[in-house]
Amino acid sequence: MSFVLKSTEERARLWKPMFARDLPDLPFHVWPETGNAQDVRYLAAWQPPENLAEVFPNLEVLFSVGAGVDQLNLSSVPENVRIVRMMEPGLAEGMIEYVLWAVLSYHRDMFRYARQQAEHIWEGTPNISARHFRVGVMGMGALGSPVLEKLSELGYVCSGWSRKRHEVPGITSYAGAEELDAFLASTDILICLMPLTEETKGILNRQLFGKLPDGACLINCGRGGHLVQEDLLWALDTGKIKQAILDVTDPEPLPEQHPFWKHPLIFLTPHIASSSRVDSGGRMILKNIIRYQKNERMLGEIDRSTGY
Amino acid sequence: MSFVLKSTEERARLWKPMFARDLPDLPFHVWPETGNAQDVRYLAAWQPPENLAEVFPNLEVLFSVGAGVDQLNLSSVPENVRIVRMMEPGLAEGMIEYVLWAVLSYHRDMFRYARQQAEHIWEGTPNISARHFRVGVMGMGALGSPVLEKLSELGYVCSGWSRKRHEVPGITSYAGAEELDAFLASTDILICLMPLTEETKGILNRQLFGKLPDGACLINCGRGGHLVQEDLLWALDTGKIKQAILDVTDPEPLPEQHPFWKHPLIFLTPHIASSSRVDSGGRMILKNIIRYQKNERMLGEIDRSTGY
Repeated sequence: MSFVLKSTEERARLWKPMFARDLPDLPFHVWPETGNAQDVRYLAAWQPPENLAEVFPNLEVLFSVGAGVDQLNLSSVPENVRIVRMMEPGLAEGMIEYVLWAVLSYHRDMFRYARQQAEHIWEGTPNISARHFRVGVMGMGALGSPVLEKLSELGYVCSGWSRKRHEVPGITSYAGAEELDAFLASTDILICLMPLTEETKGILNRQLFGKLPDGACLINCGRGGHLVQEDLLWALDTGKIKQAILDVTDPEPLPEQHPFWKHPLIFLTPHIASSSRVDSGGRMILKNIIRYQKNERMLGEIDRSTGY
Repeated sequence: MSFVLKSTEERARLWKPMFARDLPDLPFHVWPETGNAQDVRYLAAWQPPENLAEVFPNLEVLFSVGAGVDQLNLSSVPENVRIVRMMEPGLAEGMIEYVLWAVLSYHRDMFRYARQQAEHIWEGTPNISARHFRVGVMGMGALGSPVLEKLSELGYVCSGWSRKRHEVPGITSYAGAEELDAFLASTDILICLMPLTEETKGILNRQLFGKLPDGACLINCGRGGHLVQEDLLWALDTGKIKQAILDVTDPEPLPEQHPFWKHPLIFLTPHIASSSRVDSGGRMILKNIIRYQKNERMLGEIDRSTGY
């Protein structure tokens, strides 16, 4: 029985001693070194090797080192292999910081002040209280829920939408396709924090934007694949959306000639909203291996029927 | 006995019915109309009329409609007139929002991403946890203390400096001139939220910047007069300060040819961090008049010996 890490040198350097201490009997290999491939039960990777079933025929658990598993071709992972995504506190912290920054930037008109500075214009806009802004988060999971909580503490009127209803104090929870229109109609600042699945691909499209109040703000911290790019350009041109803040694009990096770069109403960041911290990410995987060995539920295990 | 408001039309429109309801026996005048000037006991204004003592010889309380009283020439206000600054919850809310935005912008490298977008560069910097940033607030009063509390909740290592020691849970409190150096040496992000007085004028100068760690960030939400402008340019040139975020300048508006406008490491906003909300500002003054009439302490009354 052994563990293989296929990732960065930094993870290898930090995780090896942690595993040696907490699971001294589990051999720890750093890809491409694997020991006897027949012995490998656990693999931690962003992308597993091609022909996973042939390379590690006895693999039991595949750990993603990222928050999502949309980078995996799930059909190439044998049905009996359990798949676990990364859930560690640093991920939520980073996302809270990013979303607070984005919401505050829009609420307090900071993109406008940046443009005014370039033109040497000193002109303040009236300060509107947070309670006049309705923030809606798509996806109420491990990231969406703590983000909503923080926004609510700052005084924003908060609601969330997801497949199943989530009860979060102070947050209006909308669920399922039949409640999406009502959610959108009451959202001034729309934040995408969903997993990318077949169902959510391209969900940020012209039809959805059309249901938002005029002059809404879009913050995409999900995946580039959630957004239909030409539909965002339409929404910005028509004033349906007044400002977009995008941390993710498709593809990444964004090609040099892409129209998003120069668009005056798009603020781009290079997929930095949130990343798993190396140290706590390693601890999380260790914990999950120990839970798995005791036949306990692993944190972040995905449901292969829904893909998240 | 009467009340005079010398301010905006909006305040006049909103405050008049509030006063009529809560203090129906107190005549409410809107400057320049004053009724019999001998009867005026209360004046609310940003700038009182010149020759205040002659215009309103029986004035008892002067209410500033802003958070500070540095716009007043205190020596022209008769000694027996009590002076009250505006303290209402909207002021702290606005300041919390602005400072959170500024600290997050610096911490999460947003000014760099803005520059990168202009050059079509997709390049993320590693995400460093909030607990590796030491935030220091100068001024621990009605604005500084709630700001520190919020920053601390987000994980920043927080300290404050003020004339007298303030005990705030989780915040290291430094007091007085003799502890200023220690405070500065442990501050990566310096936030000025002090009142402007003879003692604090020009306090943000070369000597003070020299005591910060290299590559610090300066956020000035106090007054333009706190900052020695050429000393900031020196600190930015030498790398002592890596980024400045200024909501206040001297004078305001900033002259069109001023070097701050174009400086790549200065982000300017036109004195919008925080403003008193018209409705709650009026309620605050009403409350204070009622307290004054009952001989109770007014909230925000300044100590004429220190000027704040």
